[in-house]
Amino acid sequence: MSSSTSTLITNIATLVTNDPSLGWGSPRSSTFESGGSSPLGLVRDAAVVVEGDRVVWTGSSRKAPATDNRVDVQGRAVLPGFVDSHSHLVFAGDRTEEFHARMSGRPYTAGGIRTTVAATRAATDAELEANLLRYRHEALRQGTTTLETKSGYGLTVEDEARALRLAARHTEEVTYLGAHVVPPEYADDPAGYVDLVTGAMLDACAPHARWIDVFCEKGAFDGDQARAILTAGRQRGLQLRIHANQLTHGPGVRLAVELDAASADHCTHLTDADVDALANSRTVATLLPGAEFSTRAEWPDARRLLDAGVTVALSTDCNPGSSFTSSMPFCIALAVRDMGMTPDEAVWSATAGGAAALRRTDVGRLAPGARADLLVLDAPSHVHLAYRPGVPLVTQVWQGGERVV
Amino acid sequence: MSSSTSTLITNIATLVTNDPSLGWGSPRSSTFESGGSSPLGLVRDAAVVVEGDRVVWTGSSRKAPATDNRVDVQGRAVLPGFVDSHSHLVFAGDRTEEFHARMSGRPYTAGGIRTTVAATRAATDAELEANLLRYRHEALRQGTTTLETKSGYGLTVEDEARALRLAARHTEEVTYLGAHVVPPEYADDPAGYVDLVTGAMLDACAPHARWIDVFCEKGAFDGDQARAILTAGRQRGLQLRIHANQLTHGPGVRLAVELDAASADHCTHLTDADVDALANSRTVATLLPGAEFSTRAEWPDARRLLDAGVTVALSTDCNPGSSFTSSMPFCIALAVRDMGMTPDEAVWSATAGGAAALRRTDVGRLAPGARADLLVLDAPSHVHLAYRPGVPLVTQVWQGGERVV
Ligand SMILES: [Zn+2]
Ligand SMILES: [Zn+2]
Repeated sequence: MSSSTSTLITNIATLVTNDPSLGWGSPRSSTFESGGSSPLGLVRDAAVVVEGDRVVWTGSSRKAPATDNRVDVQGRAVLPGFVDSHSHLVFAGDRTEEFHARMSGRPYTAGGIRTTVAATRAATDAELEANLLRYRHEALRQGTTTLETKSGYGLTVEDEARALRLAARHTEEVTYLGAHVVPPEYADDPAGYVDLVTGAMLDACAPHARWIDVFCEKGAFDGDQARAILTAGRQRGLQLRIHANQLTHGPGVRLAVELDAASADHCTHLTDADVDALANSRTVATLLPGAEFSTRAEWPDARRLLDAGVTVALSTDCNPGSSFTSSMPFCIALAVRDMGMTPDEAVWSATAGGAAALRRTDVGRLAPGARADLLVLDAPSHVHLAYRPGVPLVTQVWQGGERVV
Repeated sequence: MSSSTSTLITNIATLVTNDPSLGWGSPRSSTFESGGSSPLGLVRDAAVVVEGDRVVWTGSSRKAPATDNRVDVQGRAVLPGFVDSHSHLVFAGDRTEEFHARMSGRPYTAGGIRTTVAATRAATDAELEANLLRYRHEALRQGTTTLETKSGYGLTVEDEARALRLAARHTEEVTYLGAHVVPPEYADDPAGYVDLVTGAMLDACAPHARWIDVFCEKGAFDGDQARAILTAGRQRGLQLRIHANQLTHGPGVRLAVELDAASADHCTHLTDADVDALANSRTVATLLPGAEFSTRAEWPDARRLLDAGVTVALSTDCNPGSSFTSSMPFCIALAVRDMGMTPDEAVWSATAGGAAALRRTDVGRLAPGARADLLVLDAPSHVHLAYRPGVPLVTQVWQGGERVV
């Protein structure tokens, strides 16, 4: 072993490794009670050894190697930290009144996303960064150790680049979403806005981002525009993700597959051809149940996707308009209740699934070589995330080998 | 003022008082943004003065009187502590496997409530009390300052009395639920079990309880049995509540009204006559959305009840079988999303509504004379409990004038 300090985390009642070598199986055949095969690579009475920022060993606590330090989690469950691959946290302002009106059956005529765009443009860098940090920490306290976040409330060259610069200070997973919506000043010239997004705005933004994303939807960007935007981004070295098929059937999912995007996000309205395309691709279907919850919309059918062999991720879509939750546990509980996922599948999708949606192999699992990003539940198993909905069960969070919560 | 120390809690962006003198109105006409009438008696830029265990003053922070101490909540919202009027927390064991099987589409043939009865009977007093305290504290951290809890997993004279004795150490709101289900040893003699519940078991339990409850449902106790049980309890000085109309239409709700029970709990399957009876009574309809969430059952129609003029409470039903959530914020979010309540109505029902279901006037509101039981949200308004579902927003809890979280 190297000269780094090693730490044993032990007395783990249930360890979720997502390590196929420890019992990968079809989710449908998973048997929690028998300790048999599970997509989660479960180990009972387990331990994890952390050295530096990495996991170096997992297994039965009885077989654990000697270490410098020892942490006893007293029969709790340990999971990989959540990987939230879809959020919109560079914003200012608040849309409480819009939500309150919608949920009270009262008319509300203000501007939706444009309200947030105006507030974001008017905010100082310090205000934007403080807001981002607030929600980043809130997510971390709930176990999210990897968090993607997007621009998309600036919609000018300067404001989009600023959003990405600020985001890049706090996460590696930064996404350029200049193509969130056509801003008011381009209402009469959407083609001109696409030129900006693929031209000067892309030039200013590409250095700060890993990903490019587009909201492909009626009223936002159509399939041809989305293809042009994503293709331009790829030429600048960005990888692709796409808001697809959220509100209506549309070309987004098939475009994502055609372009080998890492993820098609939302996937609420899918044809059989869309499902087939996803199943025969590397593109992950990222489902965002917080959005359906907060807008009282139809649930995406996770069961249909899983049964077809599609890789499914769960994410929060945290944003002040349509899904103002930062809680991955809440998304897991909804996915089980309303989207046909088993508890095991939902936990896998919120960890390994999110990692797949970000094309990461170092997070979303706890196996030798993986980042030591993990959470401890105040419960003996991962099933409690669905069994105890709404209860804040995350009681410790470790990130890069350090306890941060 | 008396010799007690006085404390000013100030810089409250939104204060929920539930004080009709501060702007009671029909929930349907509530206008959050105008600061107009609301069932919540809202005060903006508010302060509360606490002395001993009581609230002695509420109002605009600019008009606050001088006090000994000062607590600045920095623009957060303050609400009355939640009043959770329905829980089942004197139990042992765990039903994770049953939940996991149900939510994974796998068969599971073990015993439901009877599993918990067996584990509870086998537990020591210390084990039962430690479990109860664990969930009591969990609820407190989420803002529940008043918590009713029930027996019902002992089902022998000794085990029911023990449950109530333990519960009474930790809450004033203790309910005798010997009539939860007919235990296995009386499977062939349900009438004999009713005799026990109304005889020796009642004698042993009445001294430790304030309330008597019965599960009036097909497969549990019918209307005649329920009437006999509740009437016997009343004769021993207990007040009445009833599990009514959860799984099927039945006589429970009308029996509750006939006997002037404080609350009819569940109310999922109601005829128009049931709704009318509730509307013309003092009986509160207590809705328990955690149960429908965790069993994938049909939602109770809160809108129908509210529109008819029924007083509605929200509660968790926290129990290890059908609703293992202790989170009143989660119940509020569900009530708004799926039961037709406005955010204001849901917050009222989780505070003042719960107090009405317990026939308490000292909790569920923040007005001079009320108990100083309150919570501070990490958000500027009460609406965020629905707007930010799943996020643990409760950041301070005060109980009887002392900060406890
Ligand atoms: Zn999004
Ligand atoms: Zn109950």
